[in-house]
Amino acid sequence: MTDTQKCAPCRQIFIVSDGTAITAETLAHSIMTQFPDLDYHQTRIPFVNTVEKALETAQRINQVEKEEGLRPIIFTTFVDPDIMRTFNEHVSGHIIDLFRKFVGPLETELGMKSAHSIGQSHRIRDDAKYNRRIAAIDYTLQHDDGQTNRGLDEADVILVGVSRSGKTPTSLYLAMQFGIKVANYPLIPEDFDRGSLPDALIPLREKLFGLSIKPERLSEIRNERRPNSRYASIENCRQEIADAEGLMAREGIRWLNSTTKSIEEISATIMADLGLDKRRNS
Amino acid sequence: MTDTQKCAPCRQIFIVSDGTAITAETLAHSIMTQFPDLDYHQTRIPFVNTVEKALETAQRINQVEKEEGLRPIIFTTFVDPDIMRTFNEHVSGHIIDLFRKFVGPLETELGMKSAHSIGQSHRIRDDAKYNRRIAAIDYTLQHDDGQTNRGLDEADVILVGVSRSGKTPTSLYLAMQFGIKVANYPLIPEDFDRGSLPDALIPLREKLFGLSIKPERLSEIRNERRPNSRYASIENCRQEIADAEGLMAREGIRWLNSTTKSIEEISATIMADLGLDKRRNS
Repeated sequence: MTDTQKCAPCRQIFIVSDGTAITAETLAHSIMTQFPDLDYHQTRIPFVNTVEKALETAQRINQVEKEEGLRPIIFTTFVDPDIMRTFNEHVSGHIIDLFRKFVGPLETELGMKSAHSIGQSHRIRDDAKYNRRIAAIDYTLQHDDGQTNRGLDEADVILVGVSRSGKTPTSLYLAMQFGIKVANYPLIPEDFDRGSLPDALIPLREKLFGLSIKPERLSEIRNERRPNSRYASIENCRQEIADAEGLMAREGIRWLNSTTKSIEEISATIMADLGLDKRRNS
Repeated sequence: MTDTQKCAPCRQIFIVSDGTAITAETLAHSIMTQFPDLDYHQTRIPFVNTVEKALETAQRINQVEKEEGLRPIIFTTFVDPDIMRTFNEHVSGHIIDLFRKFVGPLETELGMKSAHSIGQSHRIRDDAKYNRRIAAIDYTLQHDDGQTNRGLDEADVILVGVSRSGKTPTSLYLAMQFGIKVANYPLIPEDFDRGSLPDALIPLREKLFGLSIKPERLSEIRNERRPNSRYASIENCRQEIADAEGLMAREGIRWLNSTTKSIEEISATIMADLGLDKRRNS
């Protein structure tokens, strides 16, 4: 079991689950960003899947409260009712039970009982969905950074943009999270000199989506890779961005500026803009 | 706006947000797996970020209810109170409001007001965290499939296992979700013949984590790549798995069987086993 870092007078946040606790962590993060001024320290405790572990975890959290004096906030997603009951009875922090609040009312609404097995959400593996994710990741890795034009027409989307504009992480996130096949293709000075898209992309124009970024931020990112290079200089970044945005505008390619956006937000925007949500849901 | 596929008499699930709706989708998925017998169709509607769009979305969902006769289930994570109010007043489905239920009580507990800005959770980008994710993804791509031994000692974890045991998707998920640097290294017949780990891994034994898989499932996965090959044959898969598990046991390497686990669950198990949660949280 992991130690908890002391952070008094900051608030301790615990995320406790009989499964991976990843879902709980994602929602806890969203909820906590509603309190941007709060100084807190977060500890995830996954796989609390026996009554004994529940008791032990409750005691450990109580000990932290005793030492630091502030009531911890505890996000939980227990599926097993006995484990949940034991935990809730023994812990003294502020519990935010992410499952129970909704599952009960849903049972009424749907007129059916819920499954009370442990870690259901990540335990039952849907092999078809798994295979689709793996195939999408394979495809995306093979078509990263314009590595090959073979099979480019099988892409659900082809991201374009200058080097380090965020194409690779966005491609991988889209493949991993949504199981869609993404290729990404760099726009380079040769393309700007020629004034047109790379040849391989011309017949696939409707699959293209562009990423742009503020020159200042691009220069920062490139400087981490190649410090003090011409590649990373602010003048060169300004020129490449201006050229790329000009080219995308002329070619009628949809694009967004990634500077202040998270990978999740960039990905969701692309899905919505290209109507990929629809395809995925049907 | 995307069309909604008809699915009567199945239940329509809508996930509506003024942000990306990704958090809402993740939690909705976890909650809905509690009802494994329910036949449902899910539609994500992100970026409902004006009162007009809220009204339009409510009407669209009401229309679906009218056509199909079953009350839709609607998961929401509106941050903006006016948009939420408009939506709630006009829609007639069963609303599961993932934010409001928890944010109000937390305001009391914490003695502070929450931020009511739109899409806060994915909108404020934490550049330090973003940089760490990008660096982890770069590292992980460079160290996929034993590509290079350079900088192998900088890995937070090195995954080992036979070809197609799930190393690459797990590595990428760990890098993307948790910002940790993952290398992965295949175990191949030459290693089994020699009866020892690849040389480069011997000094890094404490960073190793193994993935294994059922031979039947491995054969299935390999057959999709190279149908009817010796590589994919059940006999060969059985032999490689037996050899790999024998080697890992002799070398004292922790490992898990990935056959029935999701990428999320494999990743969370590795994080917990290697104590990486702790490192990440501190």
